[in-house]
Amino acid sequence: MAADTGPVLQWIEAHFDDSVKRLEEFLRIPSVGADPAHDADTRRAAEWLQGELRGIGIETALHDTPGHPMVVGRSEEGQGPRILYYGHYDVQPPDPLELWESPPFEPVVVEGPHGPRIIARGAVDDKGQLLTILEALRAWKAVHGALPVPVTLLVEGEEESSSPNLDPFLERYRQALAADMVVVSDTLMPAIDQPAITTQLRGLLYTEITVGGPGQDLHSGMFGGAVVNPVHVLARLIAGLHDARGRVTVEGFYDRVLPLSPEQRRSWQELGIDERALLAAAGFDRSVGEEGYSVIERIWARPCLDVNGVWGGYTGEGSKTVIPAEAHAKLSCRLVPEQRPDEIFAALQRYFERRLPEGCRLEIRRFGSGDPVRVPTDSPHLAAARRALREVFDREPALIGCGGSIPVVASFKRILGLDTILMGFGLDDDRMHSPNEKFELACLRNGIRAHAVLLARMAERAAG
Amino acid sequence: MAADTGPVLQWIEAHFDDSVKRLEEFLRIPSVGADPAHDADTRRAAEWLQGELRGIGIETALHDTPGHPMVVGRSEEGQGPRILYYGHYDVQPPDPLELWESPPFEPVVVEGPHGPRIIARGAVDDKGQLLTILEALRAWKAVHGALPVPVTLLVEGEEESSSPNLDPFLERYRQALAADMVVVSDTLMPAIDQPAITTQLRGLLYTEITVGGPGQDLHSGMFGGAVVNPVHVLARLIAGLHDARGRVTVEGFYDRVLPLSPEQRRSWQELGIDERALLAAAGFDRSVGEEGYSVIERIWARPCLDVNGVWGGYTGEGSKTVIPAEAHAKLSCRLVPEQRPDEIFAALQRYFERRLPEGCRLEIRRFGSGDPVRVPTDSPHLAAARRALREVFDREPALIGCGGSIPVVASFKRILGLDTILMGFGLDDDRMHSPNEKFELACLRNGIRAHAVLLARMAERAAG
Repeated sequence: MAADTGPVLQWIEAHFDDSVKRLEEFLRIPSVGADPAHDADTRRAAEWLQGELRGIGIETALHDTPGHPMVVGRSEEGQGPRILYYGHYDVQPPDPLELWESPPFEPVVVEGPHGPRIIARGAVDDKGQLLTILEALRAWKAVHGALPVPVTLLVEGEEESSSPNLDPFLERYRQALAADMVVVSDTLMPAIDQPAITTQLRGLLYTEITVGGPGQDLHSGMFGGAVVNPVHVLARLIAGLHDARGRVTVEGFYDRVLPLSPEQRRSWQELGIDERALLAAAGFDRSVGEEGYSVIERIWARPCLDVNGVWGGYTGEGSKTVIPAEAHAKLSCRLVPEQRPDEIFAALQRYFERRLPEGCRLEIRRFGSGDPVRVPTDSPHLAAARRALREVFDREPALIGCGGSIPVVASFKRILGLDTILMGFGLDDDRMHSPNEKFELACLRNGIRAHAVLLARMAERAAG
Repeated sequence: MAADTGPVLQWIEAHFDDSVKRLEEFLRIPSVGADPAHDADTRRAAEWLQGELRGIGIETALHDTPGHPMVVGRSEEGQGPRILYYGHYDVQPPDPLELWESPPFEPVVVEGPHGPRIIARGAVDDKGQLLTILEALRAWKAVHGALPVPVTLLVEGEEESSSPNLDPFLERYRQALAADMVVVSDTLMPAIDQPAITTQLRGLLYTEITVGGPGQDLHSGMFGGAVVNPVHVLARLIAGLHDARGRVTVEGFYDRVLPLSPEQRRSWQELGIDERALLAAAGFDRSVGEEGYSVIERIWARPCLDVNGVWGGYTGEGSKTVIPAEAHAKLSCRLVPEQRPDEIFAALQRYFERRLPEGCRLEIRRFGSGDPVRVPTDSPHLAAARRALREVFDREPALIGCGGSIPVVASFKRILGLDTILMGFGLDDDRMHSPNEKFELACLRNGIRAHAVLLARMAERAAG
């Protein structure tokens, strides 16, 4: 049945220049969701999407929220499992502007080592990747007049602001958003010719620690050497969080961590990822972490703990001889299945409370958290996605991990009961969230093709 | 010969209300030397002093500097050793204003446990203490028509700003400022009825440490667990600076430290200082420091190392999942005789360089330093000062230390070759540099009396 995708793929090829033009149009809208000065632009991006979906022939509505609107499209055509596509039309702020080689909202197509690429804020995250879905739907409608399976689209404008209104929206429209799986294109591939599905995402627990000594800053001449210095105490507490083998010492931290299976380790090793190049791109010449694991194992499948910020006492220019009253640290853990943020938070509290010297105060605040996610790898949906990628890339897709969190994936599971297929087409060097963000046109093309084929494979499942 | 001070002391008693009025006048001038908005006020304080000295009958000039002027008075009357008095007419900024119970530059006299006290910025530091000298000179001139020994006065307006123009001034006027000793009233007594001379001051070495990892802040999801975190590295370095016994681990740190003599330890112990009250006043219920030493020994006579500030990564509200590119600490050492700032700086450099993990960058900056000071306790000048204090307080003065630095003392020694007699009348609870700064009128009176007697005892030395 692979044959029926032929005309669709031909149409995609023939109209690819139009797809690029539409992406340019989308990228020209500076939909910086987090910046109130761009509120009108952000809404315009939602309206642009609504117009495109209607143009394709998909019934679409904007749903207002306390923040930016949700774009919801819905098609009843076809038979078989319903796909719920998720994406976002907001982009990161373009700062620092001076590091852009071309204006962030004036997309340009330039030649790179992989052929043409498009440079603009949002190119890969997520406008370019979102359009791979829209253009695949467009091709099906153009060639066959209808989609092969029912689909719902949910596109939000606050992903870069932690999606504050998504969960309430999912709760409220639980019935209307019912589907068989979620499909998202907002992740990466290990290499331009190596398709991948991300099946494992680390969770997050974010905390803030305050160690207090005296009630106020003191003169270090008058008291230095005779009273506790909260910065010294905090330094000792932080220093003790890791042992010499790079493991987190917090009692119970690893209790629920699922070990990496030999098969997974082998399959990741076979990806042949150039870890040295990965590190070098970030300015490192070596990896530092938990003993006995490769770089991608450390990032994709092992939990970790990092201090994200530290402050206390005098931090201005020159000198001030003060014994600080307090010292603070932002401290977060990346979690892997089946670690639970609540348990890890309690373990951290115990770690600090037990080690705090007498006469000091301790305060631990918690700033949100996200569960780690593991997408089942034995589902028929995932099998269909793998098959689609294999057909397009002529290569077995890798099942990879992601060191970061995509909190919406946990929301879809928790609220709608749906697993998410993370079929992404970005590359490590796409400069997500950084100046000169880009998307390879080869990735755009393959993404459109992969989504077009996925629709066919999903329909087969209904037919078969 | 003690008898000849009788009329002077009587005059002081009879005119004490006028002394208080003059102090109020002086305190009403908001001479916040560090604040350019108060430049005119600060100059006005210098001119007020010049007027007072001229009124007393001492030839006085203002010497302009790149900052605030130096007030220099000089009297050739009498015979014997020349005293160089030093003081300062600038005061600390009064912030935070909201914590003052009365306006900082509207002095009020209120009753306290020790009788009346005057409350205003500068009351004890240093306007009140400086006036103890002026009023003693005034009394001598009023009663005897002349001073018993030659004196020079040097009063600056930048002491609270680290005296940037004092050393060049001393260099330039080395000849004109020649004397036999320096006398300063800018220190404390252990108790209101326990006179003291400060004979030991800690020195200072102030540094800033930067530990760098990658070139830029990184996303902790994308790299957490696989790359070095400079905050962790800095925390380990700081944590290692002290051992379990509270000693500094930096190699060579204690090499030149003069041990406390049994006599000194005994004499300080006999002062009966309430260490618990001293700590409680700063908000502490215990002392933390080097094992085997009392609180005042730790503060007066043992070196120490404190982190004065620390910062790195995200320090704003809420959460940002970043692996910081750099972590920083301000780190200073309080030094005791015969430690040398240059050697300690080199030792610190070695400590950090040797322990820095591979792949990290290190930068150590140095922000000035001051030598520790020990005033010889066997000089005839000091004997005269002890005798003067004993006569006024009817109690043997204590020879005490001071945990802080008074850098000018080292300058007088280095540039003019003079030892300094630190004969102070402040109390621990005078709130120097803090809101509601005060000076006990009993201390003002005893200070004036002590300086008056000191002049007589110095003259005796010439006569004897």
